Amino acid sequence: MRWQAHTSLTSISDLDREDIDRLMALAGQMAGARAPAINTLAGRIVATLFYEVSTRTRLSFESAALRLGGHVISVADAATSSVAKGETLADTVRMVSGYADAIVLRHPEAGAARAAADALDGRVPVINGGDGAGEHPTQAMTDAFTLHQHFGRLDGLTVTFVGDLRYGRTVHSLMALLDHYELRAVQLVAPDGLEAPAGGILGGARVERIDSLADAAASTDVLYMTRIQHERLPAGSSAPAALQVDRAVLDALPAESLILHPLPRRDELPPLVDEDPRAIYFRQAANGVPMRMALLTHAIG
Amino acid sequence: MRWQAHTSLTSISDLDREDIDRLMALAGQMAGARAPAINTLAGRIVATLFYEVSTRTRLSFESAALRLGGHVISVADAATSSVAKGETLADTVRMVSGYADAIVLRHPEAGAARAAADALDGRVPVINGGDGAGEHPTQAMTDAFTLHQHFGRLDGLTVTFVGDLRYGRTVHSLMALLDHYELRAVQLVAPDGLEAPAGGILGGARVERIDSLADAAASTDVLYMTRIQHERLPAGSSAPAALQVDRAVLDALPAESLILHPLPRRDELPPLVDEDPRAIYFRQAANGVPMRMALLTHAIG
Amino acid sequence: MRWQAHTSLTSISDLDREDIDRLMALAGQMAGARAPAINTLAGRIVATLFYEVSTRTRLSFESAALRLGGHVISVADAATSSVAKGETLADTVRMVSGYADAIVLRHPEAGAARAAADALDGRVPVINGGDGAGEHPTQAMTDAFTLHQHFGRLDGLTVTFVGDLRYGRTVHSLMALLDHYELRAVQLVAPDGLEAPAGGILGGARVERIDSLADAAASTDVLYMTRIQHERLPAGSSAPAALQVDRAVLDALPAESLILHPLPRRDELPPLVDEDPRAIYFRQAANGVPMRMALLTHAIG
Repeated sequence: MRWQAHTSLTSISDLDREDIDRLMALAGQMAGARAPAINTLAGRIVATLFYEVSTRTRLSFESAALRLGGHVISVADAATSSVAKGETLADTVRMVSGYADAIVLRHPEAGAARAAADALDGRVPVINGGDGAGEHPTQAMTDAFTLHQHFGRLDGLTVTFVGDLRYGRTVHSLMALLDHYELRAVQLVAPDGLEAPAGGILGGARVERIDSLADAAASTDVLYMTRIQHERLPAGSSAPAALQVDRAVLDALPAESLILHPLPRRDELPPLVDEDPRAIYFRQAANGVPMRMALLTHAIG
Repeated sequence: MRWQAHTSLTSISDLDREDIDRLMALAGQMAGARAPAINTLAGRIVATLFYEVSTRTRLSFESAALRLGGHVISVADAATSSVAKGETLADTVRMVSGYADAIVLRHPEAGAARAAADALDGRVPVINGGDGAGEHPTQAMTDAFTLHQHFGRLDGLTVTFVGDLRYGRTVHSLMALLDHYELRAVQLVAPDGLEAPAGGILGGARVERIDSLADAAASTDVLYMTRIQHERLPAGSSAPAALQVDRAVLDALPAESLILHPLPRRDELPPLVDEDPRAIYFRQAANGVPMRMALLTHAIG
Repeated sequence: MRWQAHTSLTSISDLDREDIDRLMALAGQMAGARAPAINTLAGRIVATLFYEVSTRTRLSFESAALRLGGHVISVADAATSSVAKGETLADTVRMVSGYADAIVLRHPEAGAARAAADALDGRVPVINGGDGAGEHPTQAMTDAFTLHQHFGRLDGLTVTFVGDLRYGRTVHSLMALLDHYELRAVQLVAPDGLEAPAGGILGGARVERIDSLADAAASTDVLYMTRIQHERLPAGSSAPAALQVDRAVLDALPAESLILHPLPRRDELPPLVDEDPRAIYFRQAANGVPMRMALLTHAIG
């Protein structure tokens, strides 16, 4: 167990396999539970401090805290508030640490969550709710929980990552998480210029780059789709066309596979995919609540 | 009873007269009550999802949910958040339905609440908090409750609607509501170009258009004032002058009548009206809380 | 006792010395306490209505209300909401008074809190969370509480105010507060053009203007630093350089003194000051919660 109670979670690397397995089991207990039954956060206050607007991550953390009997204070758009008076991130989180028992931080710069945790020096845990093109560890935990719910395991899966693998932080965190397991194969399908930074071996399997999404689909257990992060492309560069799940991809995908997406989605998942029983991305989004209930319970419960 | 528990309320047409009467009675019980006494929403989470900013509707729903022992998660200005990443309304409400037990939706487009409810397919109820120039059914219920508190009935009243009857959605919803009752008379006073879309018969009474507000006042029980919806006028068109309650109108109004306004007001209600005992619009605004307590209790209590 | 329960707090002049002493004692009881133990606000709703964005004041009030078992409804940026529809402050607070048991108001205009309290005519208390260049009484109470925690008294202290003494409302309120006590000396150090409006006698001591911060430091018990309020300077005027605490000032300051700052800070407190044991501004910020718990308990508990 690497992640100690009452400490920060800024990266998937703060977790070892035992942490991940235990948190997935705890999330399983939280799923479907109602607040009156579980009060691990009674009297505790969670601050959501978002320098980038994100309804999904913010609302799922707030829902999780409330369902555990906790309270929430929120800055939904910090970029237009205290920063307007020129305050540093370190000063802002020191201030918020006086008002809350945990801080969920979303920030446009990679490394911001780590810097915030360092500034607080352990007084209040910081949970990374996404730091630029860096990491999004609680999303990766939600993704892993979704896979575990369905397959009963993470070992032995063939995972295909599709889309913006360069700037997509959820991919970075999920890859780091899966490296604790024994995968059967890892396939990457990315448009030119948006390839993943690293290659090599992941989860004991050789990482393979594939040009055609339909070709990759045939042997896939987990099709992990992502949108192109237009807001993180260098200024002036034009975005490549999104790789799209179409009828041919659906036909090629095995019956027992799953289609995930951290959402929001654009063209990469046209509406016809929603009707497919393998499309699990809305359940995946809802799983953010029990997983974040588990994470908050560990962090400050 | 047309409105089933755990289903959406997107239009006044989702309610029949029995629903309306029952909800007004329930709101009467809620009025003045404090949260500790009523816990119909214990452990429930209400999401307020506002694509148009509205302090009045949002805060009154949130106050109602909290007074019933419920919790709230909120997007006060959705137009600048997830939409910035190009997400559809359908995807956004599917996402929020994973985090909350009911969604109160405000949206600039008529029909948006119905579309959201359709996208959710009954999994979580959607309450229409105003959809463009369409409807505002919970405001109409609040208005009706205010009239019922004072007159003890809705039947037999003479109602005069004044102002922007074309784009004012509260007028549309209240007219549809009153059509379930037997009115004595309905009078419409609107500036050129802002007339109500329909005429004919309403609540069994012939709808009469009148040019002069003072003329209409003399036989009025309920003077329902509205502001001109500048934000909904076609671009480039200039707004007509507001029809104003002045001393002459107050002198003409019967002693037992009431002046309502869904607020915010502009020139149509100058400060001198505030001192008049028939001016009930601030009580009307406060009545939004007990009525929304009744509506939320029915929807998810 | 001047401040009656269930009435507004719009200025330090609403308090007498007995009020101040009693509230500091109550804040001492609140410090460190957890919500389950204290439920003075059970079932009560506090509205935070902020026409200027302020994470510090808003979040500390919300944390205080939640720790007391109360609920919160919030308009974090009222300037872009109902005001967009042209509503007056008086109408807005009348509306909010129907939804909440107390209103914490932040507004860019001096006198706004008093005007809001007048419009409500005692129905719901208004707490001034900062009104333009006017007052910030709850910050002054927090500052006084911080001094009392450390020195055990306010009488007999030498207080040095530094920075923007003209537009800094926290200075105005704290000076008014300290006038209830017997100070040993009061020193003012301000850049040209940012001097305090008044001079004369304060807390029984003659107010002395001093040019050099290092000179003033030597006899100081309380070094009260402030930032230059760039947003309140007349348009087109350039801000003077900030007076800065440097190594020479730290060397001159007595060992038993304290450095306070209402935060956010800019150049006036460089990072080297943070390590100094006399730097107490982050504790001062955290003290906003127990003091606001005391104030809310008095106002509506």
